[in-house]
Amino acid sequence: MDREGLNASLGAVSAQQTPAPKAHRIIMDSNKVVENIYLLVIVTLVSVLQNAFFAQKVERECKNHNTRTSAFERVSCANRNCMDAYPTFLAVMWCAGLCLSQAPAAFAGIIYLVVRQKYFVGYLGQTSQSTPGYLFGKRVITFLSLMCVIGIANYLLVRFYGSDYKEYVETITNAATALLLIP
Amino acid sequence: MDREGLNASLGAVSAQQTPAPKAHRIIMDSNKVVENIYLLVIVTLVSVLQNAFFAQKVERECKNHNTRTSAFERVSCANRNCMDAYPTFLAVMWCAGLCLSQAPAAFAGIIYLVVRQKYFVGYLGQTSQSTPGYLFGKRVITFLSLMCVIGIANYLLVRFYGSDYKEYVETITNAATALLLIP
Amino acid sequence: MDREGLNASLGAVSAQQTPAPKAHRIIMDSNKVVENIYLLVIVTLVSVLQNAFFAQKVERECKNHNTRTSAFERVSCANRNCMDAYPTFLAVMWCAGLCLSQAPAAFAGIIYLVVRQKYFVGYLGQTSQSTPGYLFGKRVITFLSLMCVIGIANYLLVRFYGSDYKEYVETITNAATALLLIP
Repeated sequence: MDREGLNASLGAVSAQQTPAPKAHRIIMDSNKVVENIYLLVIVTLVSVLQNAFFAQKVERECKNHNTRTSAFERVSCANRNCMDAYPTFLAVMWCAGLCLSQAPAAFAGIIYLVVRQKYFVGYLGQTSQSTPGYLFGKRVITFLSLMCVIGIANYLLVRFYGSDYKEYVETITNAATALLLIP
Repeated sequence: MDREGLNASLGAVSAQQTPAPKAHRIIMDSNKVVENIYLLVIVTLVSVLQNAFFAQKVERECKNHNTRTSAFERVSCANRNCMDAYPTFLAVMWCAGLCLSQAPAAFAGIIYLVVRQKYFVGYLGQTSQSTPGYLFGKRVITFLSLMCVIGIANYLLVRFYGSDYKEYVETITNAATALLLIP
Repeated sequence: MDREGLNASLGAVSAQQTPAPKAHRIIMDSNKVVENIYLLVIVTLVSVLQNAFFAQKVERECKNHNTRTSAFERVSCANRNCMDAYPTFLAVMWCAGLCLSQAPAAFAGIIYLVVRQKYFVGYLGQTSQSTPGYLFGKRVITFLSLMCVIGIANYLLVRFYGSDYKEYVETITNAATALLLIP
C-alpha cells in the first residue's frame, strides 16, 4: 500500500510534468506573443488602411491633373506631412504598448488616427490660408512617450529596489487615457 | 529497496528539474527570440541595402547636376515615393510575421523588394509620360495585411472558443504565397 | 518514517512546482520583455524628441515666412532628409538589438542621433554651397547592419553546428563600438 501510494503520487507528479506535444506548445508560445500585441497589430492595420486611403487620394489627384495644380499640391503636401510623422507614431505606440500595457497604447493610437484623418481632410479645404500647420497629434505622441518613460522607470525601480508599482501605474494610465478625449 | 526505488524515482524527477546554468539559459532564450524573427531580419537588412542603393543614386545625381535637372527630379521623386511607403511595408511585414508565421511573410517581403526595384528603375526611364503612378506593391501589402487579420482572428478564436486552426491556416498561407508570383 | 520521508520529499518537489500567483508571473514576464529592450526604447524616445525638435523648427520657419524663402527651403529639406532615413535607422537598430545585444546597438543609436543633429544644424548654415549631401550616418548604419548579420550567423551556427560563439562575439562587438567614436 505504501508502494502504491508512492507510485500514485509519483504518477501525479510526472503527469504534471509531462510536456504537451511539441506542435501544441509552439502554438501556445506563439499565441502568448500574439496575446501581448494583438491590439497594437489591429491599430497598425487600421493605420495602414488609412495610409492606403491617403495614397489613393494622391494617386487620383495625380492622374486627374497632369499639370501641378493647387489641389494636387495640397493633397501631396498633406500626405507628406502625415507620412513624415508616421514612423515616429508607430515607434512610440509600440514602445508604449510593450513597456507598459497595450490597451491604453492602442486606444491612444486610435485617437491619433482620428486626429490624422481630421488633419488630412482639413488640409484639403478650399482656402490655402486655412491650412493647418506642419505638426499634429502632439498631445497623443506626448502621452505615449510618457507611457514609455513610466514603463521604463517602473522596470528600473523593480530591478534596483524590488518595489513594483506596475499595477497602480496601469490603473492610472487607463484612467488618464480618458483625458485624451477632452478636446 | 522500496526506499531506493523511491530515491531513484525522485532523483529522476529532480534531475528533470535541474535548471541549466544561467548563462546558457539566457543564450537559449535569446536564440528562441531570434528563431522566430531571423527571416524577417534578413529581409529587413536586404531592404536597408536597397534603401542605401536608392539614396546613393540620389546623392550621385545631386552632385553631378547642381541645377535641378529633370533626371534629378525623377530620381528624387522615385526615392521619395519608395521612402513614403517603406514604414508601412515594414510594419505590415513584421506584424504578419509575428502573428501568423515568418516564412510566408519574409517571402512576400522579398517579392515586395523586387517590385520596388522594378518601380524605381521604371521611374528613371527616358520619357516622363511613362512614369508609373504613386502606388506600387498593392497586392503584396494586401496579402500581408490579410495574414495579420487571419493571425489575429485565429488568436481570438483560440481564446474564446478553444478551437485552433492555426496549422491549417499556415499551410494554406504557405500555398497562397505562391499566387503572388503570378504577375 | 519511510512514509514521512517520502511525503517530505514529495512535498519539496511539489513546493518547487507551485506556480507563483498569476498576476505576479505576468509582471515578471512583462519585465523580462522590458529587460531586453529598455535601452532601445530609451534611444527611440530620444530620437522622437529630436524629431519633435526638427518638426518644430520647420513649423516655426513655416509660420514666420509665409512666402517660400531660402531659410524655409533649407529647414524643410534638412528635415525631409532626416525623416527619409529615420525608418531605416529604427529598423536596423532594433534588429541589431534583438539579434545580438542591446547595449552596443543603443550606443550606436545615440551616436547616430548626434551625427543627425550635426547634419541638421550644418544644413542650416549660411551659404547654400556648404550644405552636406543627402546621406549621413553611413558608418553607424553599416555597423548596425553588421551586428544583425553577425547575430543571425551566430544563430544559424548554433542551430546547425551546435557551437556557440555568442559570448565572444558580444565582447568583440562591445569593443568595436568604441571605434565608432573615432571621427
